[in-house]
Amino acid sequence: MENLKEYFPFIRKYSSLSEVLRDQELASLGDAFVNFIYSLTLSRTAGKPIGRKLDSYVLSSALRKAGMRALLPHRTDRHKQADAAEALIVYGWLSEVISLRETIDILMREEDLSEGVSILLKEIIKRSRLLRQ
Amino acid sequence: MENLKEYFPFIRKYSSLSEVLRDQELASLGDAFVNFIYSLTLSRTAGKPIGRKLDSYVLSSALRKAGMRALLPHRTDRHKQADAAEALIVYGWLSEVISLRETIDILMREEDLSEGVSILLKEIIKRSRLLRQ
Repeated sequence: MENLKEYFPFIRKYSSLSEVLRDQELASLGDAFVNFIYSLTLSRTAGKPIGRKLDSYVLSSALRKAGMRALLPHRTDRHKQADAAEALIVYGWLSEVISLRETIDILMREEDLSEGVSILLKEIIKRSRLLRQ
Repeated sequence: MENLKEYFPFIRKYSSLSEVLRDQELASLGDAFVNFIYSLTLSRTAGKPIGRKLDSYVLSSALRKAGMRALLPHRTDRHKQADAAEALIVYGWLSEVISLRETIDILMREEDLSEGVSILLKEIIKRSRLLRQ
Protein backbone atom coordinates (compact mmCIF):
# COMPACT_ATOMS: atom_id res chain seq x y z
CA MET A 1 0.00 0.00 0.00
CA GLU A 2 1.47 3.35 -1.04
CA ASN A 3 1.41 6.68 0.76
CA LEU A 4 0.48 5.16 4.07
CA LYS A 5 1.62 8.22 5.97
CA GLU A 6 -0.77 10.41 3.94
CA TYR A 7 -3.62 7.96 4.31
CA PHE A 8 -3.09 7.58 8.06
CA PRO A 9 -1.73 10.98 9.07
CA PHE A 10 -2.09 10.24 12.78
CA ILE A 11 1.09 8.17 12.56
CA ARG A 12 3.14 11.37 12.32
CA LYS A 13 2.25 12.45 15.84
CA TYR A 14 4.57 9.97 17.54
CA SER A 15 8.03 11.30 18.30
CA SER A 16 9.51 8.95 20.89
CA LEU A 17 9.79 5.17 21.19
CA SER A 18 8.22 5.04 24.64
CA GLU A 19 5.22 7.00 23.35
CA VAL A 20 4.66 4.30 20.70
CA LEU A 21 5.21 1.42 23.12
CA ARG A 22 2.67 2.77 25.62
CA ASP A 23 -0.09 3.66 23.16
CA GLN A 24 -3.03 1.34 23.80
CA GLU A 25 -4.96 2.39 20.68
CA LEU A 26 -1.95 1.70 18.48
CA ALA A 27 -1.55 -1.65 20.25
CA SER A 28 -5.15 -2.50 19.40
CA LEU A 29 -4.61 -1.85 15.69
CA GLY A 30 -1.23 -3.59 16.05
CA ASP A 31 -2.95 -6.73 17.32
CA ALA A 32 -4.95 -7.01 14.07
CA PHE A 33 -1.84 -6.27 12.00
CA VAL A 34 0.39 -8.77 13.80
CA ASN A 35 -2.15 -11.60 13.53
CA PHE A 36 -2.44 -10.84 9.83
CA ILE A 37 1.30 -10.85 9.09
CA TYR A 38 1.84 -13.91 11.27
CA SER A 39 -0.90 -15.74 9.34
CA LEU A 40 0.69 -14.66 6.04
CA THR A 41 4.08 -15.91 7.25
CA LEU A 42 2.64 -19.31 8.15
CA SER A 43 0.77 -19.44 4.83
CA ARG A 44 3.90 -18.63 2.86
CA THR A 45 5.89 -21.31 4.70
CA ALA A 46 3.19 -24.00 4.49
CA GLY A 47 2.22 -23.24 0.90
CA LYS A 48 -1.44 -23.11 1.91
CA PRO A 49 -3.69 -20.59 3.70
CA ILE A 50 -3.38 -20.56 7.49
CA GLY A 51 -4.89 -18.14 10.00
CA ARG A 52 -3.56 -18.00 13.54
CA LYS A 53 -3.12 -15.54 16.39
CA LEU A 54 0.41 -14.79 17.52
CA ASP A 55 0.81 -15.78 21.16
CA SER A 56 1.31 -12.82 23.48
CA TYR A 57 4.08 -14.68 25.34
CA VAL A 58 6.11 -14.76 22.11
CA LEU A 59 5.59 -11.01 21.70
CA SER A 60 6.57 -10.09 25.26
CA SER A 61 9.66 -12.32 25.04
CA ALA A 62 10.64 -10.64 21.79
CA LEU A 63 10.32 -7.21 23.39
CA ARG A 64 12.65 -8.25 26.20
CA LYS A 65 15.16 -9.80 23.80
CA ALA A 66 15.16 -6.55 21.84
CA GLY A 67 16.15 -4.72 25.03
CA MET A 68 13.01 -2.57 25.16
CA ARG A 69 11.58 -3.76 28.45
CA ALA A 70 13.30 -0.88 30.29
CA LEU A 71 11.30 1.67 28.33
CA LEU A 72 8.08 0.52 30.00
CA PRO A 73 7.05 1.21 33.60
CA HIS A 74 8.46 -1.21 36.16
CA ARG A 75 5.16 -3.00 36.92
CA THR A 76 4.11 -3.50 33.28
CA ASP A 77 2.79 -7.07 33.00
CA ARG A 78 3.45 -9.58 30.22
CA HIS A 79 0.26 -8.75 28.40
CA LYS A 80 1.08 -5.04 28.25
CA GLN A 81 4.61 -5.89 27.09
CA ALA A 82 3.06 -7.83 24.20
CA ASP A 83 0.83 -4.81 23.45
CA ALA A 84 3.95 -2.65 23.27
CA ALA A 85 5.52 -4.98 20.70
CA GLU A 86 2.31 -4.94 18.60
CA ALA A 87 2.18 -1.14 18.72
CA LEU A 88 5.76 -0.83 17.49
CA ILE A 89 5.29 -3.36 14.68
CA VAL A 90 2.25 -1.60 13.21
CA TYR A 91 4.00 1.73 13.74
CA GLY A 92 6.82 0.43 11.55
CA TRP A 93 4.45 -0.43 8.73
CA LEU A 94 2.26 2.70 8.91
CA SER A 95 5.25 5.01 9.05
CA GLU A 96 6.67 3.22 6.01
CA VAL A 97 9.95 2.14 7.52
CA ILE A 98 9.18 -1.50 6.76
CA SER A 99 6.98 -3.16 4.13
CA LEU A 100 4.60 -6.10 4.49
CA ARG A 101 6.92 -8.21 2.38
CA GLU A 102 10.00 -7.40 4.45
CA THR A 103 8.10 -8.07 7.66
CA ILE A 104 7.13 -11.54 6.47
CA ASP A 105 10.62 -12.25 5.17
CA ILE A 106 12.17 -11.38 8.55
CA LEU A 107 9.71 -13.59 10.45
CA MET A 108 10.34 -16.48 8.06
CA ARG A 109 14.12 -16.28 8.31
CA GLU A 110 14.39 -17.30 11.97
CA GLU A 111 13.67 -20.75 13.33
CA ASP A 112 12.69 -19.28 16.68
CA LEU A 113 9.63 -17.07 16.37
CA SER A 114 10.35 -14.76 19.31
CA GLU A 115 13.87 -14.28 17.91
CA GLY A 116 12.31 -13.33 14.55
CA VAL A 117 9.95 -10.83 16.18
CA SER A 118 12.84 -9.42 18.20
CA ILE A 119 14.87 -8.84 15.02
CA LEU A 120 11.83 -7.19 13.45
CA LEU A 121 11.46 -4.82 16.43
CA LYS A 122 15.15 -3.87 16.33
CA GLU A 123 15.02 -3.32 12.58
CA ILE A 124 12.05 -0.95 12.93
CA ILE A 125 13.86 1.05 15.65
CA LYS A 126 17.03 1.23 13.57
CA ARG A 127 15.19 2.64 10.58
CA SER A 128 12.71 4.93 12.36
CA ARG A 129 13.18 8.51 13.44
CA LEU A 130 11.74 7.88 16.89
CA LEU A 131 13.70 9.30 19.79
CA ARG A 132 15.27 6.41 21.77
CA GLN A 133 13.57 7.26 25.00
CA MET B 1 2.50 -5.75 -1.60
CA GLU B 2 3.61 -6.69 -5.10
CA ASN B 3 3.62 -10.06 -6.83
CA LEU B 4 1.25 -11.61 -4.33
CA LYS B 5 0.40 -14.43 -6.70
CA GLU B 6 4.07 -15.40 -6.95
CA TYR B 7 4.59 -15.13 -3.21
CA PHE B 8 1.47 -17.16 -2.40
CA PRO B 9 1.23 -19.53 -5.38
CA PHE B 10 -1.47 -21.63 -3.71
CA ILE B 11 -3.99 -18.94 -4.64
CA ARG B 12 -3.86 -20.10 -8.27
CA LYS B 13 -5.41 -23.47 -7.49
CA TYR B 14 -8.94 -22.10 -7.06
CA SER B 15 -11.04 -22.18 -10.20
CA SER B 16 -14.65 -21.79 -9.05
CA LEU B 17 -16.43 -19.43 -6.70
CA SER B 18 -18.00 -22.19 -4.63
CA GLU B 19 -14.57 -23.74 -4.13
CA VAL B 20 -13.35 -20.46 -2.60
CA LEU B 21 -16.48 -19.97 -0.49
CA ARG B 22 -16.23 -23.45 1.05
CA ASP B 23 -12.50 -23.44 1.80
CA GLN B 24 -12.07 -23.43 5.58
CA GLU B 25 -8.31 -22.79 5.48
CA LEU B 26 -8.81 -19.78 3.25
CA ALA B 27 -11.56 -18.59 5.62
CA SER B 28 -9.14 -18.83 8.52
CA LEU B 29 -6.57 -16.61 6.79
CA GLY B 30 -9.49 -14.44 5.62
CA ASP B 31 -10.54 -13.87 9.22
CA ALA B 32 -7.15 -12.30 10.02
CA PHE B 33 -7.27 -10.26 6.81
CA VAL B 34 -10.81 -8.98 7.32
CA ASN B 35 -10.16 -7.91 10.92
CA PHE B 36 -7.08 -6.07 9.72
CA ILE B 37 -8.79 -4.17 6.89
CA TYR B 38 -11.81 -3.41 9.06
CA SER B 39 -9.49 -1.98 11.73
CA LEU B 40 -7.69 0.09 9.08
CA THR B 41 -11.03 1.38 7.79
CA LEU B 42 -12.10 2.47 11.28
CA SER B 43 -8.67 4.03 11.88
CA ARG B 44 -8.82 5.97 8.64
CA THR B 45 -12.32 7.24 9.44
CA ALA B 46 -11.58 8.15 13.07
CA GLY B 47 -8.16 9.65 12.37
CA LYS B 48 -6.64 7.52 15.14
CA PRO B 49 -5.63 3.86 15.50
CA ILE B 50 -8.48 1.45 16.21
CA GLY B 51 -8.47 -2.35 16.30
CA ARG B 52 -11.72 -4.28 16.15
CA LYS B 53 -13.09 -7.60 14.93
CA LEU B 54 -15.71 -7.51 12.21
CA ASP B 55 -18.91 -9.10 13.49
CA SER B 56 -19.75 -12.39 11.77
CA TYR B 57 -23.40 -11.34 11.48
CA VAL B 58 -22.35 -8.41 9.28
CA LEU B 59 -20.36 -10.79 7.10
CA SER B 60 -23.13 -13.36 6.68
CA SER B 61 -25.66 -10.60 5.89
CA ALA B 62 -23.28 -9.20 3.28
CA LEU B 63 -22.94 -12.60 1.65
CA ARG B 64 -26.73 -12.90 1.38
CA LYS B 65 -27.09 -9.38 0.01
CA ALA B 66 -24.49 -10.21 -2.62
CA GLY B 67 -26.64 -13.14 -3.73
CA MET B 68 -24.06 -15.81 -2.89
CA ARG B 69 -26.00 -17.73 -0.26
CA ALA B 70 -27.26 -20.17 -2.90
CA LEU B 71 -23.71 -21.31 -3.66
CA LEU B 72 -23.41 -22.85 -0.19
CA PRO B 73 -25.08 -26.07 0.98
CA HIS B 74 -28.65 -25.65 2.22
CA ARG B 75 -27.90 -26.19 5.92
CA THR B 76 -24.87 -23.86 6.09
CA ASP B 77 -25.22 -21.84 9.31
CA ARG B 78 -24.59 -18.11 9.77
CA HIS B 79 -21.07 -18.66 11.06
CA LYS B 80 -20.07 -20.67 7.98
CA GLN B 81 -21.68 -18.03 5.76
CA ALA B 82 -19.42 -15.45 7.42
CA ASP B 83 -16.44 -17.74 6.82
CA ALA B 84 -17.36 -17.87 3.14
CA ALA B 85 -17.34 -14.07 2.92
CA GLU B 86 -13.93 -13.92 4.64
CA ALA B 87 -12.52 -16.53 2.26
CA LEU B 88 -13.66 -14.58 -0.80
CA ILE B 89 -12.33 -11.25 0.49
CA VAL B 90 -8.82 -12.56 1.14
CA TYR B 91 -8.99 -14.43 -2.19
CA GLY B 92 -9.60 -11.06 -3.87
CA TRP B 93 -6.52 -9.55 -2.31
CA LEU B 94 -4.17 -12.52 -2.77
CA SER B 95 -5.18 -13.02 -6.39
CA GLU B 96 -4.53 -9.30 -6.97
CA VAL B 97 -7.98 -8.37 -8.21
CA ILE B 98 -8.34 -5.78 -5.45
CA SER B 99 -5.78 -3.79 -3.45
CA LEU B 100 -5.73 -3.01 0.26
CA ARG B 101 -6.39 0.63 -0.52
CA GLU B 102 -9.41 -0.10 -2.73
CA THR B 103 -10.79 -2.50 -0.14
CA ILE B 104 -10.67 0.17 2.56
CA ASP B 105 -12.10 2.81 0.22
CA ILE B 106 -15.09 0.58 -0.61
CA LEU B 107 -15.80 -0.14 3.06
CA MET B 108 -15.57 3.57 3.93
CA ARG B 109 -17.93 4.68 1.17
CA GLU B 110 -21.06 3.02 2.56
CA GLU B 111 -22.89 4.12 5.70
CA ASP B 112 -24.14 0.59 6.24
CA LEU B 113 -21.26 -1.80 6.88
CA SER B 114 -22.92 -4.98 5.58
CA GLU B 115 -23.84 -3.06 2.42
CA GLY B 116 -20.17 -2.04 2.06
CA VAL B 117 -18.98 -5.64 2.50
CA SER B 118 -21.61 -6.80 0.02
CA ILE B 119 -20.35 -4.32 -2.60
CA LEU B 120 -16.80 -5.51 -1.92
CA LEU B 121 -17.81 -9.16 -2.48
CA LYS B 122 -19.59 -8.33 -5.74
CA GLU B 123 -16.64 -6.27 -6.95
CA ILE B 124 -14.23 -9.15 -6.32
CA ILE B 125 -16.47 -11.55 -8.24
CA LYS B 126 -16.83 -9.14 -11.13
CA ARG B 127 -13.07 -8.77 -11.51
CA SER B 128 -12.01 -12.36 -10.80
CA ARG B 129 -11.71 -15.23 -13.22
CA LEU B 130 -13.53 -17.63 -10.94
CA LEU B 131 -16.23 -19.74 -12.55
CA ARG B 132 -19.65 -18.58 -11.27
CA GLN B 133 -20.62 -21.91 -9.80
